[in-house]
Amino acid sequence: MTMNAYFDYAAATPMLPEVIAAMRPYYTDKFYNPSALYLAARAVKEDVQAARATIASAIGAKPNEIIFTAGGTEANNLAITGVAQQFNDAHIVTSAIEHESVLQPVHLYSHSCVPVNEQGIVRLDKLSDAITDNTVLVSVMLVNNEIGTIQDIKAIAKLVADIKINRQKQGNTRPLYIHTDACQAVNYLDIHVARLGVDMMTVNAGKIYGPKQSGMLYVRSGTTVLPMLHGGGQERNLRSGTQNVANIIGFAQAIQTVRTDVAAETKRIEQLQKHIMSSLVDNKSIRLNGTRLGRRLVNNIHITINGIDNERLLMELDERGVQVATGSACSASNDEPSHVLSAIGLDQTQIRSSIRITLGRHTTVDHCNLLVHSLKELVAKN
Amino acid sequence: MTMNAYFDYAAATPMLPEVIAAMRPYYTDKFYNPSALYLAARAVKEDVQAARATIASAIGAKPNEIIFTAGGTEANNLAITGVAQQFNDAHIVTSAIEHESVLQPVHLYSHSCVPVNEQGIVRLDKLSDAITDNTVLVSVMLVNNEIGTIQDIKAIAKLVADIKINRQKQGNTRPLYIHTDACQAVNYLDIHVARLGVDMMTVNAGKIYGPKQSGMLYVRSGTTVLPMLHGGGQERNLRSGTQNVANIIGFAQAIQTVRTDVAAETKRIEQLQKHIMSSLVDNKSIRLNGTRLGRRLVNNIHITINGIDNERLLMELDERGVQVATGSACSASNDEPSHVLSAIGLDQTQIRSSIRITLGRHTTVDHCNLLVHSLKELVAKN
Repeated sequence: MTMNAYFDYAAATPMLPEVIAAMRPYYTDKFYNPSALYLAARAVKEDVQAARATIASAIGAKPNEIIFTAGGTEANNLAITGVAQQFNDAHIVTSAIEHESVLQPVHLYSHSCVPVNEQGIVRLDKLSDAITDNTVLVSVMLVNNEIGTIQDIKAIAKLVADIKINRQKQGNTRPLYIHTDACQAVNYLDIHVARLGVDMMTVNAGKIYGPKQSGMLYVRSGTTVLPMLHGGGQERNLRSGTQNVANIIGFAQAIQTVRTDVAAETKRIEQLQKHIMSSLVDNKSIRLNGTRLGRRLVNNIHITINGIDNERLLMELDERGVQVATGSACSASNDEPSHVLSAIGLDQTQIRSSIRITLGRHTTVDHCNLLVHSLKELVAKN
Repeated sequence: MTMNAYFDYAAATPMLPEVIAAMRPYYTDKFYNPSALYLAARAVKEDVQAARATIASAIGAKPNEIIFTAGGTEANNLAITGVAQQFNDAHIVTSAIEHESVLQPVHLYSHSCVPVNEQGIVRLDKLSDAITDNTVLVSVMLVNNEIGTIQDIKAIAKLVADIKINRQKQGNTRPLYIHTDACQAVNYLDIHVARLGVDMMTVNAGKIYGPKQSGMLYVRSGTTVLPMLHGGGQERNLRSGTQNVANIIGFAQAIQTVRTDVAAETKRIEQLQKHIMSSLVDNKSIRLNGTRLGRRLVNNIHITINGIDNERLLMELDERGVQVATGSACSASNDEPSHVLSAIGLDQTQIRSSIRITLGRHTTVDHCNLLVHSLKELVAKN
């Protein structure tokens, strides 16, 4: 597959050849409903279970802790509504820069949105203050989808664990779960659920070179979640509906591929990221948003360019074969200014002068050079 | 593709070659997020809109009345919860033989389940009585997934329309919508929404030779539905989450294919159905459940065989290359006796002696002869 200089891997990833090949038999020869009872269907059910085990293994979980969903949005909604609907007075703590698929369901309940600093890092002191005796869930994303900021989920999990110990002493038996949206993290970071210390974690196959609208929610054993979708009782009654077998198989192949060479690929992408950053940093009209290296995902570069209109720049880059984003794809289409950029202190003018550049497996040095060259030229012309 | 004598088309259908071919480009060359702004992504968005128009046209709807969902279960849940959650005192009327993905969300609200007669036909007098001043939704499936009974949705829609006129006279401004689950109907029946007179209709691509976990809810203009999944605001804010572009394209191709030759295929399948029925009917230990021809879907044969254990029979048939079902795939795996068969008056022994035979595009006369021959032999041996 020949690729343009595509720099929007945070929005969508092409499917890998081995993913497509793994899925193909489940369209025809193995098309059976995995809930049926004849041998051919039971074999398909076993394949689904094997895929579940592969995915579980990739995140350090047990197979029965994986709930397949139709994408990351559904998994995030399930984590929040699945916990909050059990209580009349549920309170949820989240951050100001979560994805809309976390923020919007959270807004259906009593909640606190914890602020972030100017680099997009969640303020742990504020997080601690925000947790009340009624809080049942803390949801903080592992990596932000716009600016690439990596949160210290281990520290947040530790903080939550300490509060739980205090609660037990005080006789407060209400659960306090921690959920993380790891959709952007899987290609590059440690996503071992026990090391992170989370009770729930969202993964989206469509961001890791697998099929779109395929994902999962990790639900740690002992975590009580109620379903949103009711029916045939698939996925331990947490996600009714005939399983999308082909997508599940593709998801497993995708996570296996990206996790197998995660170290090498992270290093490669990090070098490309440094190359782009160092080429742009001497330009005084360009400002990097989010964290510096270390607490920033290796595939993300988010910049504000003084005086440019980001949509026009996007189109001018597009004409030169360079595809970037003005924000997350989800919010790009509804034309609202990014809540993430507002939260880190950008004003409306700066937001409208910002672009997101995200790298991936097909990104080459040539792509990066074309991006840098085109950007410099267009900025100079401005 | 070589097929076994597969008789479980109501549970799953293999994907058609043209569906697979139509989907393929969206895995790689056209993998873009349809919400992104560069030209290649906008082209993908246009392809999604074209698919939406194709599907709309197949059911006599406008494109903006089609809400893509991840399967039939989600569409049924959206129809029910999407309406009922707007009211504190919502009342829903449904039938006793709906799919679990209707019955279970309905059970979250005040409701009445209207009984059916011994053939599985909803009793219109009881339906009329069940509708109260608080009723906001009537949900009755077009075809039952177990016994193939076709409901007179037009008559139910007329009845509902009359009640709405009465309500207006009495100053009751509460909406009263009618929804039908048409998942099993699309391959053979009239599914024109205006002719049926419905406000909402569920279609599942996975039952019409398209991809699994892909479906849609038709929502007539002017029908107020609230979302279940919150986030990026895709699908007119009714189903957030990056659209599964490949599946949507495959869904459109599938509905186009099955609707293009619906008349010829219906006739062909009806002849096979008659052939099987007439071969079995002289056996006194075999009883046909559901309606006779005319009010029965052409691809469905549901029988009770005195003295047999249906799971053992299923396995014995399976050994001979014949795949049938003991009930719906959804309920087969959780081992509960079918609520549909209970509703038409079968006792537990009869339910455990019943099998469902459903035909489809790859069913041949040879398959039917093998089924009949094997069944007769196994029943005689019993």
